Amino acid sequence: MKGIVVKEGNNRNEMELTDMPKPEIGAGDVLVKVDHAAVNRTDILNREGKSGYAVNPILGVEAAGTIADANGHQSFAEGDRVMGLVNGGGYAEYVAMPADRAMKIPSSLSFAEAAAIPEVFLTAYQTLYWIGKLQQHETVLIHAGASGVGTAAIQLAKQLSEAKVIVTAGSERKLTFCRELGADVPINYKEQAFDEEVLKATDNEGVDLILDFIGADYWDKNMKSIKKGGRWVLIGVLGGAELENVNLMSLMSNYIQLTGTLLTPRTDAYKAELSSEFARTVIPYMDKGSVRPIIDTIFPGRKANQAHQHMENNQNIGKILLSMNE
Amino acid sequence: MKGIVVKEGNNRNEMELTDMPKPEIGAGDVLVKVDHAAVNRTDILNREGKSGYAVNPILGVEAAGTIADANGHQSFAEGDRVMGLVNGGGYAEYVAMPADRAMKIPSSLSFAEAAAIPEVFLTAYQTLYWIGKLQQHETVLIHAGASGVGTAAIQLAKQLSEAKVIVTAGSERKLTFCRELGADVPINYKEQAFDEEVLKATDNEGVDLILDFIGADYWDKNMKSIKKGGRWVLIGVLGGAELENVNLMSLMSNYIQLTGTLLTPRTDAYKAELSSEFARTVIPYMDKGSVRPIIDTIFPGRKANQAHQHMENNQNIGKILLSMNE
Repeated sequence: MKGIVVKEGNNRNEMELTDMPKPEIGAGDVLVKVDHAAVNRTDILNREGKSGYAVNPILGVEAAGTIADANGHQSFAEGDRVMGLVNGGGYAEYVAMPADRAMKIPSSLSFAEAAAIPEVFLTAYQTLYWIGKLQQHETVLIHAGASGVGTAAIQLAKQLSEAKVIVTAGSERKLTFCRELGADVPINYKEQAFDEEVLKATDNEGVDLILDFIGADYWDKNMKSIKKGGRWVLIGVLGGAELENVNLMSLMSNYIQLTGTLLTPRTDAYKAELSSEFARTVIPYMDKGSVRPIIDTIFPGRKANQAHQHMENNQNIGKILLSMNE
Repeated sequence: MKGIVVKEGNNRNEMELTDMPKPEIGAGDVLVKVDHAAVNRTDILNREGKSGYAVNPILGVEAAGTIADANGHQSFAEGDRVMGLVNGGGYAEYVAMPADRAMKIPSSLSFAEAAAIPEVFLTAYQTLYWIGKLQQHETVLIHAGASGVGTAAIQLAKQLSEAKVIVTAGSERKLTFCRELGADVPINYKEQAFDEEVLKATDNEGVDLILDFIGADYWDKNMKSIKKGGRWVLIGVLGGAELENVNLMSLMSNYIQLTGTLLTPRTDAYKAELSSEFARTVIPYMDKGSVRPIIDTIFPGRKANQAHQHMENNQNIGKILLSMNE
């Protein structure tokens, strides 16, 4: 079968579609014929050899397709349409997917739409609910609102929790899109001091919850934007990981809960439980269309380099996909 | 009546016992004739004019004594023995205590013992359970194990949760005492690298929970001592508040939950709920003697300066009290 791997050599910066053995499946897996895979920042880190936890030479941490071998798992039959997180290997014709995190695709969604769901929606769900404990009608600040996780989080916070959603993004085009998804307060971080706008929008109280993909660059402004006793979930360091001169008293006197998290390196059991709760809780909203996967661009698998480049250019709204069915 | 206030003048470094008006009580308060008050680090900050939230010229945030005026509150009668947090004014003959945080003193405890309970045991309970979510048989690292909060936290973690308790302190005398209270692994931080000892004691896994009174000086070692997904509660910065360099990736890749907290500036409602849950949950253990208040020294009220000095010398094991009934 064909799979996308990083080219040999020191300069790990290009991938190629090449012949690879069909994946072996373990007792816990089903074999999925991939229709679409999706691109994630963790794939870029793996391509560059920087993540440290890639175990599969084929890139890709999520896919959607059909069951080619149910491998004795009674909940699935050959031909069932499924989507889910995989332990690498998503950019391929076939992938081994742990059965306990394969989610059936509602009939209203295409394979491409389904491939746009697992990583970003599970991350948004995990950070908003498992870690961030978002409550009904609370206020949440979502940075990178037009990103994959951002567009998922806006919808979940509005539809599941009727939250007040404040987003930041770097262009009017992105902010307009966020507003269409339900965001209440769009802030252009290039033109406005987001902490001042957040305080204006919250009667100077600040937000209950921050989803922070940025890290160092936004630290001080996030500290000013959060309510006393607020929760702050750190899920990315696009704006740097190195912080200088932190005053711990500001965490104490504001009773801040700061939690760091990542999804990809979590255990199989964690991903299975998250997928199963998500399928029960959120997929019904997707089936009726009130929450929807957001696709930016679909590239053919052989243009994976271009797809990565597109993500690195940071112009996408929602997910970048690879079509593996050609 | 007599009350202890800071002397006038620029150099706020001395207190005196002086004539003050008897406190006015609001609708929510009872009036307590104070038998013993206790000294806290927040009193030292107030004495130095550094806390920013003192509202009462008389120092002291907790007291034990008898109800002098129940002020219509049906749960109390004149002469009832009570202990609790107050909004300043504890170092006095009489103090106004919000009725909904006054806790009845079990008959097995003296006033002095009772005065040693509220602040440190409520803080230990709040940080271990409300914030730290300590579960049965988990492992907890308690810094400053011989301090007021430390001695309370060791006992609660052992008696309520059968936790494995690792403590740090700076002398063998303190560590022996911690062991007598139930601590499993005593570490002399002056002689041993505590992170290495913690890893030895936990099969290299680290602890589930850290109670951190130290802040900056222990940051790196705490990061090495905590389990993946562990909780870290920051309740003091005795080792400095200013961190020069923080790498946010270590919070993310270890899924750390870091929560800052303080008790004294919390709302009345928060303190009432905490006191009420504590009275239901912990006081039965005190009544039967398996959890006990730890008293270091009792000073007469007129020697409050000496009592503060004793706390600043950092040689105490457990609480420093002021006797106000002389």
